[in-house]
Amino acid sequence: TGSSYGTHFRVSTFGESHGGGVGCIIDGCPPRIPLTESDLQFDLDRRRPGQSRITTPRKETDTCRISSGVSEGMTTGTPIHVFVPNTDQRGLDYSEMSVAYRPSHADATYDMKYGVRSVQGGGRSSARETIGRVAPGALAKKILKQFAGTEILAYVSQVHHVVLPEELVDHENLTLEQIENNIVRCPNPEYAEKMIAAIDAVRTKGNSVGGVVTCIVRNAPRGLGTPVFDKLEAELAKACMSLPATKGFEFGSGFAGTFLTGLEHNDEFYTDENGRIRTRTNRSGGIQGGISNGEIINMRVAFKPTSTIGRKQNTVTRDKVETEMIARGRHDPCVVPRAVPMVEAMVALVLVDQLMAQYAQCHLFPINPELQEPLQIEQPQNATAL
Amino acid sequence: TGSSYGTHFRVSTFGESHGGGVGCIIDGCPPRIPLTESDLQFDLDRRRPGQSRITTPRKETDTCRISSGVSEGMTTGTPIHVFVPNTDQRGLDYSEMSVAYRPSHADATYDMKYGVRSVQGGGRSSARETIGRVAPGALAKKILKQFAGTEILAYVSQVHHVVLPEELVDHENLTLEQIENNIVRCPNPEYAEKMIAAIDAVRTKGNSVGGVVTCIVRNAPRGLGTPVFDKLEAELAKACMSLPATKGFEFGSGFAGTFLTGLEHNDEFYTDENGRIRTRTNRSGGIQGGISNGEIINMRVAFKPTSTIGRKQNTVTRDKVETEMIARGRHDPCVVPRAVPMVEAMVALVLVDQLMAQYAQCHLFPINPELQEPLQIEQPQNATAL
Amino acid sequence: TGSSYGTHFRVSTFGESHGGGVGCIIDGCPPRIPLTESDLQFDLDRRRPGQSRITTPRKETDTCRISSGVSEGMTTGTPIHVFVPNTDQRGLDYSEMSVAYRPSHADATYDMKYGVRSVQGGGRSSARETIGRVAPGALAKKILKQFAGTEILAYVSQVHHVVLPEELVDHENLTLEQIENNIVRCPNPEYAEKMIAAIDAVRTKGNSVGGVVTCIVRNAPRGLGTPVFDKLEAELAKACMSLPATKGFEFGSGFAGTFLTGLEHNDEFYTDENGRIRTRTNRSGGIQGGISNGEIINMRVAFKPTSTIGRKQNTVTRDKVETEMIARGRHDPCVVPRAVPMVEAMVALVLVDQLMAQYAQCHLFPINPELQEPLQIEQPQNATAL
Amino acid sequence: TGSSYGTHFRVSTFGESHGGGVGCIIDGCPPRIPLTESDLQFDLDRRRPGQSRITTPRKETDTCRISSGVSEGMTTGTPIHVFVPNTDQRGLDYSEMSVAYRPSHADATYDMKYGVRSVQGGGRSSARETIGRVAPGALAKKILKQFAGTEILAYVSQVHHVVLPEELVDHENLTLEQIENNIVRCPNPEYAEKMIAAIDAVRTKGNSVGGVVTCIVRNAPRGLGTPVFDKLEAELAKACMSLPATKGFEFGSGFAGTFLTGLEHNDEFYTDENGRIRTRTNRSGGIQGGISNGEIINMRVAFKPTSTIGRKQNTVTRDKVETEMIARGRHDPCVVPRAVPMVEAMVALVLVDQLMAQYAQCHLFPINPELQEPLQIEQPQNATAL
Repeated sequence: TGSSYGTHFRVSTFGESHGGGVGCIIDGCPPRIPLTESDLQFDLDRRRPGQSRITTPRKETDTCRISSGVSEGMTTGTPIHVFVPNTDQRGLDYSEMSVAYRPSHADATYDMKYGVRSVQGGGRSSARETIGRVAPGALAKKILKQFAGTEILAYVSQVHHVVLPEELVDHENLTLEQIENNIVRCPNPEYAEKMIAAIDAVRTKGNSVGGVVTCIVRNAPRGLGTPVFDKLEAELAKACMSLPATKGFEFGSGFAGTFLTGLEHNDEFYTDENGRIRTRTNRSGGIQGGISNGEIINMRVAFKPTSTIGRKQNTVTRDKVETEMIARGRHDPCVVPRAVPMVEAMVALVLVDQLMAQYAQCHLFPINPELQEPLQIEQPQNATAL
Repeated sequence: TGSSYGTHFRVSTFGESHGGGVGCIIDGCPPRIPLTESDLQFDLDRRRPGQSRITTPRKETDTCRISSGVSEGMTTGTPIHVFVPNTDQRGLDYSEMSVAYRPSHADATYDMKYGVRSVQGGGRSSARETIGRVAPGALAKKILKQFAGTEILAYVSQVHHVVLPEELVDHENLTLEQIENNIVRCPNPEYAEKMIAAIDAVRTKGNSVGGVVTCIVRNAPRGLGTPVFDKLEAELAKACMSLPATKGFEFGSGFAGTFLTGLEHNDEFYTDENGRIRTRTNRSGGIQGGISNGEIINMRVAFKPTSTIGRKQNTVTRDKVETEMIARGRHDPCVVPRAVPMVEAMVALVLVDQLMAQYAQCHLFPINPELQEPLQIEQPQNATAL
Repeated sequence: TGSSYGTHFRVSTFGESHGGGVGCIIDGCPPRIPLTESDLQFDLDRRRPGQSRITTPRKETDTCRISSGVSEGMTTGTPIHVFVPNTDQRGLDYSEMSVAYRPSHADATYDMKYGVRSVQGGGRSSARETIGRVAPGALAKKILKQFAGTEILAYVSQVHHVVLPEELVDHENLTLEQIENNIVRCPNPEYAEKMIAAIDAVRTKGNSVGGVVTCIVRNAPRGLGTPVFDKLEAELAKACMSLPATKGFEFGSGFAGTFLTGLEHNDEFYTDENGRIRTRTNRSGGIQGGISNGEIINMRVAFKPTSTIGRKQNTVTRDKVETEMIARGRHDPCVVPRAVPMVEAMVALVLVDQLMAQYAQCHLFPINPELQEPLQIEQPQNATAL
Repeated sequence: TGSSYGTHFRVSTFGESHGGGVGCIIDGCPPRIPLTESDLQFDLDRRRPGQSRITTPRKETDTCRISSGVSEGMTTGTPIHVFVPNTDQRGLDYSEMSVAYRPSHADATYDMKYGVRSVQGGGRSSARETIGRVAPGALAKKILKQFAGTEILAYVSQVHHVVLPEELVDHENLTLEQIENNIVRCPNPEYAEKMIAAIDAVRTKGNSVGGVVTCIVRNAPRGLGTPVFDKLEAELAKACMSLPATKGFEFGSGFAGTFLTGLEHNDEFYTDENGRIRTRTNRSGGIQGGISNGEIINMRVAFKPTSTIGRKQNTVTRDKVETEMIARGRHDPCVVPRAVPMVEAMVALVLVDQLMAQYAQCHLFPINPELQEPLQIEQPQNATAL
């Protein structure tokens, strides 16, 4: 069934744009991890609609409530239920859409698949479902950070024709603050302004633009990813491409790598000052043979321009009559600023699931210290689980 | 665990480059489908090493043997075991590699993950594992064709700097013959020659190049893909990105779509002469909201230049000593010609699995004829299962 | 992870005895099925605590709320979220138990497994989790009844030493009314009285008794169950043995069958008046070779005497000090009356999941009318999905 | 799909009685475990047909071959393929059965499910499929023994009316030798003779008898089992009830426990000389709240009398004509002697899967030493993985 992700750290989500609420169950979470609603709320607030003029004006606080799986501030290892009520629903905006299909949206295909559809706000196809991803993603980030020192950071690297040159971002030292310091979440202030202007340019004309989100992972443990079908890049591709409005995924050299020869493309190995095996370059994007090699994992996700636009378009009605429509309602002129915490969440869910898979299979018995490293960074002595 | 794909039509694969043999189990296959080894051998022969001067010279017939799940030429619905023996193994080629890591290959990360590795021929990371994908892919293609008239065709659209312009390929009428009519599997003869020359240019210097495989699906039933995590493009992305040497995946407008506005990017709906809802353009690549809309599905997969090259490179040995190496053994100068049947197989496995999922959930009860279509094309009256 | 059941009709549950609430997500439900909270409430009320003097006095209405997956009274095919708030929590009852382990209860093993525990009401080990089973079970029953005319009925067949002779129950004509006509849910009034007396006898002394629930399935379609690991009896055994307090499962002749020879035990085949293949006897319990044969499926589930008793017992505290305890709080003197709807629910979840699996694999193509029957009973012409 | 078991240690099986061969793929096995064919052959020989006069005379050596997943005598962590050819096939024995259905066998229901059937030897319903269980079970036993000192021993405790009194078997000190010292695998010589006589009595008359296999687990780590659906007893029930010819499963006090009151049934806790929490009695059968508590796990599995008997029975043909038949071919007069290694194997597969699940979820972070114990017993210093 389509609404669960993960084998060990398993997230099952529910909820539509205009139902009672949205949320998820997190099953298989390690026990004794300090967890409160505020741990989840930070990223939910980065995802929230109505956070700036370049996002949909829908007013939701997206305040989450945890109603199981936590006792006295600690995860108990039993399923964690997270619920966010829908408070600012305007069903009327969608009356027109109960008749006509929005071009390139999910309206038509949900009807084709299910023969029925919750029309308001796009029902299950609404980006509100990503609340059920971002909340557990925040917990996954916390586990990865605590266990292995892993950090996951995404940022906007392209809006329409404004492309942030890769060399202007130092992935070794990129910080959350740099990303959050503007409403488009581009860590380079100069390009951020250009991007905001590009969004403003279409927003005021009821149109929309797409863009690209780049995501990096620092301090990923070595050995994550399970060939041959659950290779790390395959799971990352699935996880990111399951987000609404995506059109492409690439990691490391990506499509551009196809223009190089093997000699140009290969990342030569060397041994660093700590005696660790490293790669001089990182066109592999931190993953080789489907398995993380400890270098920075970097990937890019293409998001199309939002389909719902306030412009006249030819389309058909549910009973196949050709018509014109102008979409009402509140929509993102560009999804990428709010997609940043969504990509981070999906990457975190992949990594924590693969970390637990690797721990179960390859660390059940003592590792081979000649070829392997501990997965876990040094823990302060009196650490509770976290 | 990483070596199974699919929920309903489940493929589990086994085998390394230099073990006893390679193959798979197919579980959940519909019963009473005529199946013989020759049904699988056609695509295995298109995948085979040693098929032309621009592929690895390793001599394997890759003749497959079915030893269960078929009775009197018909699938019985029970697990189908397909086995291909390894006959042309040269372990010696890899003695050097038992010491030094091939840059950008899986040698190092398999050691990091498992603490042990079957060195010869890259062990499980060898492309020979794809036998376990291509054989069941052939059966999946047969089921899709018979049930829904679905056709899956992949071809090489780029080798190194030689990029086949999209407008030179008519996806409506592309045929297998056009693809198979040259050793690089590019349906345009002129560009095929350029591509072969580009491969020859590096092959003779022990180097390698990458490229892109484009894959299309005609007559995909509407409604395939299971939001929110198993959206069709997410499953296709995972399936294709699980193939060896991949670096990127995109569908429909892909990364290029991010340069368009919503108004430019949207595919307007219209009603065709048969009263069916169609899209005027297909930047959606046949998938909207994670669900197939019946238009041609098109996607592109980026393959890096082969990592194993006969050129001097700096690397390290298993015990972390910096060294130089020139890879011995027989390797593909460019993987894309042999990747064509591999991409087709993975796309087929995704579609047959999603077809069975859609049939189970949304066709258990009578469909809503106003919004839905039967999944199955008209069957000739006396058809056995196939 | 442990809190999901089913592959096609997938139920994920959450919630503890004293958290915010209990419930589930149902994913993969066929669309366009009329569904309201009252469809679920009937069985939730049969499960509810405080329903009679022979169940725990805890006062909960267990009123459920559906907050997604239904639009205008119809399932949309997207995840259905069902929530029941905990309203009558007495945490104080359990202060003693936060110190001492209740013998034969889950207190100790949850600590051993997770290293932490939601103490009040037994946390996740409380029978309140079964709300997340009984609600989706009611929907599964509705689907099975509508699609195949399948009926699932469980009843109490033993309480302590009071054993209802099998021959006193006519499985062909047993009705829900006969079962619900007394508070112990035994369809034979005379034995019901004896059973109630047996419960009263221990209840007044703070003790408890166990019993057996028998469950039958009429009109199960033929062909359900997926050898070799997901044989129907294996899935039924798992589903029933996952309920709290179970100690044994048997079907058809069960353990008693081991005292017969093959000749005595075998069910001879014959052809009935409608030309259908039937068995003269039904020691196979409606399942042969792991697959339903269309005869009545019958099984028995053993439930131990409730562990939490108001009697002095030797035990240890969480810090391993030997102590004596008398369990406070409100507990069932005998679980079987409330276990009846729980067993029905789990059997329904198994059957609907296997029905969808069978439909996907073996009915994708036209069946072989010589050997197979349609899964679905004749539908009235204008039937919506239901 | 029905032919895979396990999430972490995943076994997928294939093969019918009269196909090319039978076997399995083991995916997710920890790496660097010494493994040779002889490790598996010991238990395959205990399962083999033709091992004594009280088993089917079919002559198969069941010699297994490992063709992947092992390099230089060590598991590599990649899928392990185990194959056993079918050498002694007598298709002719089954010509009659290609026409008539054997009463209580799987002949009829396989036709009902799949609409086709590999008739010879019962095809996939043949006990030969259990080769694909016993081989991986042997590896699972080896892992459990090495990692946690866990021992799994099953024995025949009943044949027809000959019931071995429980008190005559000391589960603390039972040995494999006691079990293997007679052809019926009953550890009590006196009762073994009675059981052999009971089998001989029916064997000579072409009839069959059933029986019960008891299985115990010593030194099971505490904390295995994943509430609420994958409770240890639920997984054990499914695994055992998926074996051919089973009719019932019970653990600890089982069905007999339903005749006790809570006070009589509860196992009181105490603290032993090592400061470990223990239970005075073990009616819980080593499992409480679905989780192992470290005490001996004990369970009993009921096997019906073999359905295929050399006696005249009424049945019907495939085209529904009533007829009489006497089953030809070679069959077990009583399955329990050969079922002993099959039950052990399934219990081992459950425990290793739950061990890896527990390790991944609850031992990723430092355990809570006040309430938890390490899963792993002390390892000798220079141990390789094993």
